[in-house]
This record gives sequence, structure tokens and C-alpha cells, in this order.
Amino acid sequence: MRITALAGGVGGARFLRGLRAHLDSLDGGPHELTVIANTGDDITLSGLRVCPDVDTLLYTLGGGANEAQGWGRAEETFTVQGELTAYGVGPDWFGLGDKDFGTHIARNYWRGQGLSYSQIIERLAARWGLPEQHVRLLPMTDEPVETHVIVDRDGEQEAIHFQHWWVKERAAIPAQRFVVAGLDRANPAPGVLEAIRTADLIVLPPSNPVVSIGIVLLVPGVRDALRGTTAPVVGVSPIVGGGPVRGHADACLAALDVEVSPQGVASLYADFLDGWLVAPGEGATAEGATAEGAGGYPRDLVVQEAPLLMSSPEAATAMAAATLRLAEAVRR
Amino acid sequence: MRITALAGGVGGARFLRGLRAHLDSLDGGPHELTVIANTGDDITLSGLRVCPDVDTLLYTLGGGANEAQGWGRAEETFTVQGELTAYGVGPDWFGLGDKDFGTHIARNYWRGQGLSYSQIIERLAARWGLPEQHVRLLPMTDEPVETHVIVDRDGEQEAIHFQHWWVKERAAIPAQRFVVAGLDRANPAPGVLEAIRTADLIVLPPSNPVVSIGIVLLVPGVRDALRGTTAPVVGVSPIVGGGPVRGHADACLAALDVEVSPQGVASLYADFLDGWLVAPGEGATAEGATAEGAGGYPRDLVVQEAPLLMSSPEAATAMAAATLRLAEAVRR
Repeated sequence: MRITALAGGVGGARFLRGLRAHLDSLDGGPHELTVIANTGDDITLSGLRVCPDVDTLLYTLGGGANEAQGWGRAEETFTVQGELTAYGVGPDWFGLGDKDFGTHIARNYWRGQGLSYSQIIERLAARWGLPEQHVRLLPMTDEPVETHVIVDRDGEQEAIHFQHWWVKERAAIPAQRFVVAGLDRANPAPGVLEAIRTADLIVLPPSNPVVSIGIVLLVPGVRDALRGTTAPVVGVSPIVGGGPVRGHADACLAALDVEVSPQGVASLYADFLDGWLVAPGEGATAEGATAEGAGGYPRDLVVQEAPLLMSSPEAATAMAAATLRLAEAVRR
Repeated sequence: MRITALAGGVGGARFLRGLRAHLDSLDGGPHELTVIANTGDDITLSGLRVCPDVDTLLYTLGGGANEAQGWGRAEETFTVQGELTAYGVGPDWFGLGDKDFGTHIARNYWRGQGLSYSQIIERLAARWGLPEQHVRLLPMTDEPVETHVIVDRDGEQEAIHFQHWWVKERAAIPAQRFVVAGLDRANPAPGVLEAIRTADLIVLPPSNPVVSIGIVLLVPGVRDALRGTTAPVVGVSPIVGGGPVRGHADACLAALDVEVSPQGVASLYADFLDGWLVAPGEGATAEGATAEGAGGYPRDLVVQEAPLLMSSPEAATAMAAATLRLAEAVRR
């Protein structure tokens, strides 16, 4: 089986680690997993290009992530950052550990050699053992792009980098909209459209629907490929109990005037989504309800329920298993 | 008093720290010290520009050096280097610690902003408190230059980077000659020639006469400025007891067919050197001997003796004091 997933950072990475574990338990393997990562949250810090979602996917799938915080490396130290602060370089609101700096210096070195993001990720992934896991990690595009958030400051519209808004401001300033600098002239990275067109199944992990998966969907050709692929597309709601499981998806949805609910998120994917996994009690009533668009879900969407809190790797594996059961219930 | 020094790395830095301490003990201060640093041993490692002599001067004068090894930072860790090795990036023969990486990342960041080496060193020096010490650190040139060593490999002449020869090969491969890539079109950095022309005294610390001070002397205009300045030029021999106090000056002198002796080194500076401090027993016989060029020293060179082993900061301070006493005995 060949599965292709679109993903952002922590939530996507944890879900995909569970999916990888579940796939390994299935017969007929090895099953192949291709992950198309959001690169809109990339940022240049202290002169080094940092790709938070890509790195979170690498570290999580490779077994090197800080499990408590979800991003960054386990057992980190912060010597380099301390020196940069002493030199007055770099923002103090984005914490990069020493191990993490190793990744960014390696990326910077390879960029200087003229390698593309795709080629760089391939090298990083080799160290993290992704090929041996039958995981292929692709950036959504090889072009450098950056998501910016339009906010109102004293009556003036201002664009601030997504990370500034997300990390420094904790999304507390209302976002008016999101713009992705460079995306209009960006091409999908090599293999991205093919991975969507030739997959047996497309999966949307519970990543942020606006600033993670929503950005991948803006890459020219990606949304059309999802509409046109013969593979079923199933997703997992990132909204549980009226709010995001993690992060600030509520603030992102508010900017789009979309309801903070599994229904609201499903509406963003309505043109290509076939199956939708939601938390217990948040689906429509039992069988057939969705055939009429009941429960506020798009018509013809197959909705199933499962526990959606990834409180442990095992919980994530169970969620992935529920996602594959849902996939069996949908047809294109 | 305004003193200008030409300097390489460890030996120069330790001597200049002693000179700074001695100057602070003199009346009539603050006395100003300008240091013109060799940048020929600069190298790009893992995509980051590393300036070993400049950084050794910064760390030593700023109180952050690893005193045992002379270069690098005190109490270092090597997390970043370990990550780079895991990614297969960077040579394994040049050890960079995490604190040191902070300096290189800051330099890389400022280079990306378009700052010159001079401007970058000024910012680094601010963190290390050099302005408060009345020390001005200048690169010999703002152009990127690199000393290469011509060696014979299986009958073929090959140019290898100075650091490769010095650190990896430990200067064990015979050097045929040294070439400095980029130096023919290099200009002295702002302030370099002025610092030589307007000083009250020029000092040559016991730095390597070939690959440290010798490289500074190759910067267009520097040697002429030393010949033409009204300030006396006094130096300290890096050769004691027939060999270098530290490093591989013997291998460097051999490439130039110059005797490994205080006399041999003095001959390299003969056209501008006025006073020469050598180890006890290595000068000419008592008074007047040098007036006739006795003892193998250039004619008219004033030679004095003093202990030249910088076994402690106090020993370096005493050497610096002896250097200033020597300066009082010479006239231009």
C-alpha cells in the first residue's frame, strides 16, 4: 500500500509515527509512506534557514524529538543560543538548542553547495533512518516561501512572520489573513504531485488546517491533484471538544471566519475529502447521517468517530488504525 | 602611548594580554593598543567562516580562552560538532566547540548582512570588552584571503589549506612554499597603515614569523609602512633553544631556507626591525656586539635578552615589560 500524507509539525508528526507503527503491523508490507511537509513556517534565524515542520517530522519519525514539548531535540542544551544572545544576534523568542543548531548548520552548508530543499531533506532523512522505515519526506516546494500574518497594529495593517505571530505573540493578536510570500511563483517539489496522483490512500493528519495543511494546499497544483486523484482522501479532525487539541488553530480559523469545529475544518477540505475522523460524540448520528449532509458535515462525507487525543505513541497508533478503518468505508 | 602590534594566534594573544597588563601598570595612561591580526589562516568549515587567529585574540584578551590549549573557549562542549559528524558534514580534524560555533554563526549572520570583516570584528570585540581595555583589533585586510601550503605528493605539487597542513598533518609534510590566495588584490583593512604610521611603538609578538606575521607583512603596503614609520619596531623571538616555543615555526622556516634561530627570524625582519628580544644566552655578547652585526644578528639591530617562556600570564607581562625596556634602548 502506498499512502501519501500532507503534514505540519507536532500533531502531524505524532500521528504519522503512529501510522508508521500501524502500517508495520499490517500484512503485505512494506507499506510506503510519503509525507508532504509544510515549509511555509520556515524562517531564517541568525542567518540560518530553519524549517520547523520538516525538522519536527524528522526528529519525531527518527526517534530524536523532545517528547515533552513535541518539537526540538531530546536532551537539548542551549550553549550556542547563549553565545548569540551575548553577541546581540538573533531573536530571544525562538529557542534553538545545540543539537538543533547542528541540523541548521548542515542545512546551511548544503544550501551553500547549491542543493535544493528536497535534496537537503533527503540527506537529513538518511541520518534519521527514514528510508529504512519506508518513509519518504518531501517539502511541499523547493522554493523558499514564508507564511506571514496580516495583523492590525494601531489601525495599520502589518505583515509579521508566522513564527513571530505563533511563537512570540502566541497568536494572541487577531489574524486578519495569511499570505504566503513566494508561493505564487512556487512549484511543487519533485514527486509531490505524483505522490498524490499515484497513492492508494491520501491521509490528512490532525495538523493545523489553515497554517499547515492549508498552506500545502496553496502550492499550485496540489489541490487539483487531490481533487483528481483516484485515491480516497481521509482526514483526522484537529478540533476536539470545541477547540484545538494543540496550538492555535482556533485563532487561525477565526481569521477565515470558519467555525472552530470538526464541521468547520471539514468544510475547508470539502472539495476533495472523502472520509473524516472525529472525536467520540462529534460525528453525525450513526449510519447514513452524512449521506444527507447531516450534523453540519458536507454532504457525502463519511464521518466516523474515534478517540483523537495522542496522549501516547500507542494512542496515536490506535488513531492511525481508526483512520485506515475509515478509509475502508469510503470509495471515490 | 600608542602601540601597534602585528599578531597571529596563541603566542601573540598571550603576549599581548601581558602587554595590556603591563601598559595598565604604567603612568600616563590609558595607553592605546592596536592589534593587526593575521587572517590568512581563516577557513570555511561546515559553511561558516572561521577566523582562528582573530578569535584566539578575542577570547584571550577578553578572558574567555581555553587556557590549557590556548585556542578555543574555556569549558567547551561539542554537541554541534557531534551532530555535524552524524550528518556527514565538516572535517573531523578541526574541533569547534559549541561556544565557538556561537561566534562563527554570529560572524556568518553579519557577513550575510553585508558587514566587512573589520565591522564584524568590531562587534565581536565589543562583547569581549576590548574597547574598555583600549584595545583595537583590526584584520590585516577585509578581503577574504587564505594561506595555502605547497607540498609534494607523489611527485606532484599540491596546494593544501594552511589549516589542513597545520592541524591535520601537524606540519609533518615538508612545505615547499606558502601562497596566500587573494592577497595580491587585497587592500589593508581600514586603519591598518595609519596604525603603523602613527604609532609611538611597533611591537612584533613571538608569533610565527612565516605564516602569521609573515602573512601580515605580505599585505600590500604593510611592509613599506613599517620601513617608513617613525616609530621604533621591536620584536620578540619565537625561537628559543633552537626550536619554536610553540607550533611548527621550524617547519615553516625550513620552507624558506631560513635558519631556525633568533638570528634567522631577525633576518626576515631586517629591513625594518630596530630591537630584538631573545632568550637568555642567545643574544650577542653583552654591549655593542650588535653594532658590528655580531652574533649573527643584522648590523645595527639592538638585541637584548629576557626569559621568553610564557608559562603564566605574569611571565607574559614580564616579557612585555622587557620588550618596552628594549624599546627605550632603540631609536630610529
